Amino acid sequence: MPIKLGIIGYGGMGMWHHKNAQKVGGVDVVAAFDIDAYQVNVAKEAGLKGYHSLDEFLKDEEINTVLIATPNDVHKDLAVASANAGKNVIVEKPVAMSMKEIDEIIEAAEKNNVVFTVHQNRRWDKDFNKVKKAVELGMIGDVYTIESRVHGAGGLIYGWRNKKECGGGMLLDWGVHLIDQILYMIPNKVVRVYAELFSVLNKDVDDYFKLLMKFDNGLSAQIEVGTFCLKPLPRWFVGGNKGTLVVDDFEGHGEIVKLNKLADKFDAEIVETTAGPTRTFAPRPEEVKDHFELPDVNSEWIEFYANVRDTIEGKAELIVKPDEVKKVYSIIEAAFKSNQLGKAVEL
Amino acid sequence: MPIKLGIIGYGGMGMWHHKNAQKVGGVDVVAAFDIDAYQVNVAKEAGLKGYHSLDEFLKDEEINTVLIATPNDVHKDLAVASANAGKNVIVEKPVAMSMKEIDEIIEAAEKNNVVFTVHQNRRWDKDFNKVKKAVELGMIGDVYTIESRVHGAGGLIYGWRNKKECGGGMLLDWGVHLIDQILYMIPNKVVRVYAELFSVLNKDVDDYFKLLMKFDNGLSAQIEVGTFCLKPLPRWFVGGNKGTLVVDDFEGHGEIVKLNKLADKFDAEIVETTAGPTRTFAPRPEEVKDHFELPDVNSEWIEFYANVRDTIEGKAELIVKPDEVKKVYSIIEAAFKSNQLGKAVEL
Repeated sequence: MPIKLGIIGYGGMGMWHHKNAQKVGGVDVVAAFDIDAYQVNVAKEAGLKGYHSLDEFLKDEEINTVLIATPNDVHKDLAVASANAGKNVIVEKPVAMSMKEIDEIIEAAEKNNVVFTVHQNRRWDKDFNKVKKAVELGMIGDVYTIESRVHGAGGLIYGWRNKKECGGGMLLDWGVHLIDQILYMIPNKVVRVYAELFSVLNKDVDDYFKLLMKFDNGLSAQIEVGTFCLKPLPRWFVGGNKGTLVVDDFEGHGEIVKLNKLADKFDAEIVETTAGPTRTFAPRPEEVKDHFELPDVNSEWIEFYANVRDTIEGKAELIVKPDEVKKVYSIIEAAFKSNQLGKAVEL
Repeated sequence: MPIKLGIIGYGGMGMWHHKNAQKVGGVDVVAAFDIDAYQVNVAKEAGLKGYHSLDEFLKDEEINTVLIATPNDVHKDLAVASANAGKNVIVEKPVAMSMKEIDEIIEAAEKNNVVFTVHQNRRWDKDFNKVKKAVELGMIGDVYTIESRVHGAGGLIYGWRNKKECGGGMLLDWGVHLIDQILYMIPNKVVRVYAELFSVLNKDVDDYFKLLMKFDNGLSAQIEVGTFCLKPLPRWFVGGNKGTLVVDDFEGHGEIVKLNKLADKFDAEIVETTAGPTRTFAPRPEEVKDHFELPDVNSEWIEFYANVRDTIEGKAELIVKPDEVKKVYSIIEAAFKSNQLGKAVEL
């Protein structure tokens, strides 16, 4: 049974899904619904059935799967209505405005025996998959620290993403991706969250945040997103007890550095820095360090649609699972709470 | 009245102070005391009066100022004894093992009307002073985030610094410098501390830590010290609402990046990254960014000794003040407590 996809919200992301989903065999994009008449016409001109009414859209029996690409504050109602209409449901991230809303969606999906998933496309990012593979292969030993950063130079946040009541802000928009990546990579349990949110240039929403997750094995993962960081720090910094991994950018440039056997022969001498001597931070000679390429990965985000198709056909296990979506959201809620209370939040 | 300096603890740092203090006019190094007979001989061969007995050392009336460069756990007793013997007291950082010990030293110094200070030499670091000057001049506008990192590749911590009971570990050894720098630069009050300490390769002490200080104006300052980070992140990352400052290393290489007037003409377009579209993180064209050199600074740490000399002579105000030392220590104590309890600690 091919996916016959109907898109709710034919804006930037809706059009993007139209363009990309149809690249996958067994996925046909057939219809779109939007509250904006202009966008309905755009959809029609792009060859879709265009709907001005949600009811009529959901009554379209050709549509077996709905993709919701609206502002975040209306995800829940649309997802529940779609599930109740017997459609499988794909929701853009972040799935909803509260854990209660997520539970309502899951309940509706289970009751109607339809598939529910969230478009966590950054699980397929090249940079992330290089880190994930290196960590899983133990290439830098036991990992004790992860820093995952996205620093942009734009400053401004556009459209509804700049409105708090629509579920805007960087913790919801990008935090949800970066948290999801960490939880997808690290099997341990998060025990504690500490977060600080900032409104640097955008007064209504967070446009810079820092979030620390403490895992039950001691690992610390820091996530930092900034929209006005004009000289970015690397995308990933990962420290293990056998080496260090750095990824510079989304393309996955970077390397792993480890010490070789020569390291034992060079005991640190006290060195003079510009303001005093140090032995602990005496530079190592370059020849004691080995530089390794990051592992090769073959990661295509378009697999997301194929996985939904195969799950609906009963041929595959869903990759982005509802309980994973809930775990990510529990971190987001803890982060908002941490920032509001000025406390670390136990999970 | 010139400083006639007696050094307690003629090890690595004691010898270093001998070599350097005598470069300053009006500072004579005259004597050393050590519990290790071998080191007393080394001091004698270097032209100093060498003492095996603290009592005799403190009775030497030529010595008017004592510099304590021993392991941290004996600083307090030695500082109090020196003050009670009527000597001015310079203590290596971190000054003591607890706030109670610091109070005892301050009380002894006040009672005996002697000068007490701590060798916070990294207030004169070139990298730090470039950041401090840029921040104070408002070169990047209002600062909302500071990240101050020292990443080393050695892994090992040597001697007593690797022993908890001696006051070892990186939070005490380097944290005390990096916290002091931040407090010296930012006049606002720290309201909250969150810290995570790690023993990556050194089981008895912390050899990697992360410390977040929240200021009453919202500013967040992160300090991170790691002894086994083989590919270091930059020494400083500072974000302001007008620009970003990065310093790469102790030498103070780095730059400030700001947006120029052209920035208004380039509205962000949606760009495709390896895993999806983004407008918020669309790269800015290079021509909208201006790159500025970091400010020139003329900072000589040897001013520390000269300031102590001038303070003793009543000609200057002490640069490293006892109440500043206490503030730094209150952050350190809060950081240990935060790590132990897994909570953010209010100040």
